[in-house]
Amino acid sequence: MQTDKDNNDPGKPISKTTQDLPGGRLNPSAFRRTKHTGTESVESLAEKIKSGDTSALSRGITLIESNKVTDKPLARLLIRLCLRDRQDTARIAISGSPGAGKSTFIEAIGTYVADQGHKVAVLAIDPSSSLTGGSILGDKTRMEKLSAHPNAYIRPTPAGKTLGGVARYTREAIILCEAAGYNVIFIETVGVGQSETIAESMVDIFTLLLLPGAGDELQGIKRGVVEMADLIVVNKADGERIQLASQAKIAYQRALHLFPSKESGSTVEVFICSSTEDKGTGTIWQHITDMLSTHRTTGYFAQRRQQQLMHWFDASIRNNIFEIFLRNNDIHSEFEALKQAILNHQITPFDAADQLLARFFKDKS
Amino acid sequence: MQTDKDNNDPGKPISKTTQDLPGGRLNPSAFRRTKHTGTESVESLAEKIKSGDTSALSRGITLIESNKVTDKPLARLLIRLCLRDRQDTARIAISGSPGAGKSTFIEAIGTYVADQGHKVAVLAIDPSSSLTGGSILGDKTRMEKLSAHPNAYIRPTPAGKTLGGVARYTREAIILCEAAGYNVIFIETVGVGQSETIAESMVDIFTLLLLPGAGDELQGIKRGVVEMADLIVVNKADGERIQLASQAKIAYQRALHLFPSKESGSTVEVFICSSTEDKGTGTIWQHITDMLSTHRTTGYFAQRRQQQLMHWFDASIRNNIFEIFLRNNDIHSEFEALKQAILNHQITPFDAADQLLARFFKDKS
Repeated sequence: MQTDKDNNDPGKPISKTTQDLPGGRLNPSAFRRTKHTGTESVESLAEKIKSGDTSALSRGITLIESNKVTDKPLARLLIRLCLRDRQDTARIAISGSPGAGKSTFIEAIGTYVADQGHKVAVLAIDPSSSLTGGSILGDKTRMEKLSAHPNAYIRPTPAGKTLGGVARYTREAIILCEAAGYNVIFIETVGVGQSETIAESMVDIFTLLLLPGAGDELQGIKRGVVEMADLIVVNKADGERIQLASQAKIAYQRALHLFPSKESGSTVEVFICSSTEDKGTGTIWQHITDMLSTHRTTGYFAQRRQQQLMHWFDASIRNNIFEIFLRNNDIHSEFEALKQAILNHQITPFDAADQLLARFFKDKS
Repeated sequence: MQTDKDNNDPGKPISKTTQDLPGGRLNPSAFRRTKHTGTESVESLAEKIKSGDTSALSRGITLIESNKVTDKPLARLLIRLCLRDRQDTARIAISGSPGAGKSTFIEAIGTYVADQGHKVAVLAIDPSSSLTGGSILGDKTRMEKLSAHPNAYIRPTPAGKTLGGVARYTREAIILCEAAGYNVIFIETVGVGQSETIAESMVDIFTLLLLPGAGDELQGIKRGVVEMADLIVVNKADGERIQLASQAKIAYQRALHLFPSKESGSTVEVFICSSTEDKGTGTIWQHITDMLSTHRTTGYFAQRRQQQLMHWFDASIRNNIFEIFLRNNDIHSEFEALKQAILNHQITPFDAADQLLARFFKDKS
């Protein structure tokens, strides 16, 4: 992989970086002048983040969370200053139904990993928070031990983000955390909306947490999520549930045998874990480390990250262009009228799409 | 559901139909005059199709397959004339790996259904034929008995269609077949490319065929396909394979227990079938009939079809607009340059998408 040394050389002027970018000429004023967020220049903020200043990292993430129009070019500049190739980090999703014990699991494995000297950041993907205004990591007492650890950084998910916004925000928060030296990034998903799909498209390892008790555990899991898993953890295997957890492990192993094999070439293994009794986390971390090492050797690690970059480029263009398209008032009302005509079997969806596009590009040309 | 009676009244002038459509004014000349394909008017072709003339149906499908620019408005008019609400038909996908016996299964169940007096049409989705120029149903001898049946119509998949083209073509072929009185439509998929995803978005029932021999059968099945299945058929359960097939059935039933439940509310059942010894087809058809009847009662049938209509409208707009976008030479070269900048970690995919769109809509405004 190519690393972008120029971009990360603090001695280089910003304008140089911008000229190198295709299309940088579109908005040059946004980059040629030193920009300030509050009393602090973006350049200075970036330097502080890269020196490992946690409070600067928090200010940086607050900037990228901001919905203020004037903050957007500042956030963009900050990301560009912090962006570089990070093949040496691990991005790990922790998914599972509500009640599967995701927070306690992250607390346990995160502490284990941080104790080994890794720098651990925890982010969350919660598209539901845009509806509820809630925040799944907002209550930091849920990860009391980890949040007090000198090697750990926990950031609650912001409220009020759209679905597309959640993805962008999370990717950018990962960039800032990695620039600040965090090399193991856990991403908690909430099991609602598109959170797993978003997470899968930005992590190296996707972990699915399940509850013991064979048979009906997966009924709460959304379609397609099991097949995303790089490993499965039967969690809450404590006390009387140990027997149940062992049975569940066997059932899942048998079932996984019937699933298509992973593109990574790795077998999906099933683990038993008790986050409260702190059993299993070491074994699970060892397995994750081994998988990452194998994926780096085979080239799958780099390939997956490249595919993710191209996925988000493609998805962003498609989503934004569709939004811009529907923002046109004439188009929007015809869009709604055509929907009704389609449902009334007066026109096919393909024919309707042709009509709408012909109208849009006629207006534009 | 509302039916579009006006559209199907042969006594009504065509121009009336067009005025009712939102946006019909965009291209009125295409609809006000009587159009001819060869020596036959489109109106006359539509009437012949609706009277059940199989040879007219074949000419109609040839018209919608045509890549000639002058044929496009004719094909569009033909579809509009044949389009109506068809809640009384059943669209059934038959999927599975190459070698799972899809053609022999369709031959067996299709003949069974046609013998019962249903009118059976067989179409195929084969995105690979655009690469190979091949045609999975081209060799009609593979369904010798069914193709000779007076109640059956088999249409090979056309070559040279793009992925988007395959979906549109298949949906339009379904409309024409249903207009011609075919009430059971089987759609064979090839297990490559996006064929299952396309099929799932246009059928009422998705059938997955698997081979006997528990354990490794699913390794050839693409990710996500098992979860599409409304029912699973362990095929080729003949001779010495009967024992293996029974074991496979038990294994799948156990595994399916661990899958998320279907939106339809129906349980995914596993059947054993021998297409060559003609065992199991009656039971499977009874099950499909029962499921369809339940889904009609619960409203799931109508809901799924409506969702499919909206899916294809949305997908068509998104795909077409993206194509139009990239057809712009400046955009295309910047698109490629930005891809490289993203892979070089000089810019994020989101930032790159913003730049590209700003440029496009600046040029347009």
